Amino acid sequence: MISSTAEYALRAIVHLATYRRESETSQHIAEKTKVPPGYMSKVLQDLARAGIVNSQRGPKGGFTLAREPEEITILDVMTAVDPIRRIRTCPLGLPQHGTRLCALHQRLDDAMAYIEDLFANSRISDLMKPSRAGTRCLFPTVERRPAREAAGGRSPPRRTRK
Amino acid sequence: MISSTAEYALRAIVHLATYRRESETSQHIAEKTKVPPGYMSKVLQDLARAGIVNSQRGPKGGFTLAREPEEITILDVMTAVDPIRRIRTCPLGLPQHGTRLCALHQRLDDAMAYIEDLFANSRISDLMKPSRAGTRCLFPTVERRPAREAAGGRSPPRRTRK
Repeated sequence: MISSTAEYALRAIVHLATYRRESETSQHIAEKTKVPPGYMSKVLQDLARAGIVNSQRGPKGGFTLAREPEEITILDVMTAVDPIRRIRTCPLGLPQHGTRLCALHQRLDDAMAYIEDLFANSRISDLMKPSRAGTRCLFPTVERRPAREAAGGRSPPRRTRK
Repeated sequence: MISSTAEYALRAIVHLATYRRESETSQHIAEKTKVPPGYMSKVLQDLARAGIVNSQRGPKGGFTLAREPEEITILDVMTAVDPIRRIRTCPLGLPQHGTRLCALHQRLDDAMAYIEDLFANSRISDLMKPSRAGTRCLFPTVERRPAREAAGGRSPPRRTRK
């Protein structure tokens, strides 16, 4: 349902967002995200074309994030490498239907619209936080927190408005 | 996002649910649903294996619906031919993560869980009604209704509780 291409691109972006170092080679990013190197190279080219990463050539070349993690959504990344294909016209090509979708195609498109909206509202910065299970993307460690706190953030609750 | 295989299977089931005739050949179903015949043949075999259609061999053989349209969900059909693959364990194979998904994979799996739930609650009988645009699956006609009524059903509103 979510393609490997999209998932690999998200891994690469979360990696670049987490380290924010000097430019990194495609080979290095592939290794850290456990993606086949040839596949990662193609994904990074698509991300560069979409302006999500910067690509620099030369011996010290490589890839860096082109925008802040708060300014990149999951949908931006997916759209760059493997866009969600909404159903705009009758897939059977019935000329009488055209853009008037039947119940089947309307239901399928409604599902895709929901996902599109969900991912348009999910920022890369959201993915850099520990999950509710206490794990961080790409880090082989688990935050040790009591189960009842696991759903919240890492910081203690703010008390500014008490 | 929703595969051709799943979409073709849904077309076949809506077709069989709509006509409820004697058994129909794969060739005929393929023609009526505008799906390549070889592809439809494979899809129908998967649907038969899942007990959604009955398959009869012989000169008068073919396919019929095995259950009532109210008893088959979109998810049943998708699961028979191309199941939604939920993310149960860390796709990077990090042993420390295991079933504790990071924020990226949790977000992607949450999206799939939503779709799974939506389709588990969508029955084939729902798809046989005219859509809000006034079209019916597989029928090359459009119900002529004033635009303001198009979002509702075909029948006049019930007045039982006025």
